Amino acid sequence: MKAHVYVTLKRTVLDPQGQTIQGALKKLQFRSVADVRQGKYFLLTLADGTSRDAAQKEIDRIARDVLTNPVIEEYSFRLEE
Amino acid sequence: MKAHVYVTLKRTVLDPQGQTIQGALKKLQFRSVADVRQGKYFLLTLADGTSRDAAQKEIDRIARDVLTNPVIEEYSFRLEE
Repeated sequence: MKAHVYVTLKRTVLDPQGQTIQGALKKLQFRSVADVRQGKYFLLTLADGTSRDAAQKEIDRIARDVLTNPVIEEYSFRLEE
Repeated sequence: MKAHVYVTLKRTVLDPQGQTIQGALKKLQFRSVADVRQGKYFLLTLADGTSRDAAQKEIDRIARDVLTNPVIEEYSFRLEE
């Protein structure tokens, strides 16, 4: 089973990296992009035989406690067989 | 319209950052995780009135030419109304 974890800055937190990318896209004439936010993506491969329930709990704990800084970031994840 | 772009290292490329995270998870007793790969995630907001077709083309070009280093990385993206 695989888990895809997405960690992004909270909406209220300034994202200078995203703004820099947006500025670059504007200079490169990509005019349709109104905003860019950058985040992190983790692909976790789980050991064979992990049940979906156990995976759900484990990944939630990993995302919350290890991969995310709860002061400025939020996370979401999805499991894939 | 929003575009979610995921950039990951190619399967054949070593990912020391992912390995470090996996080592940390192991030490923290998360035993079900067999492998970790880290990538980047971009959330692009497109200007109102961009058609789905135009967005598809534009985001593909942006992902390929700006957000991804084609030597070591690959990308995927999805559009969301």
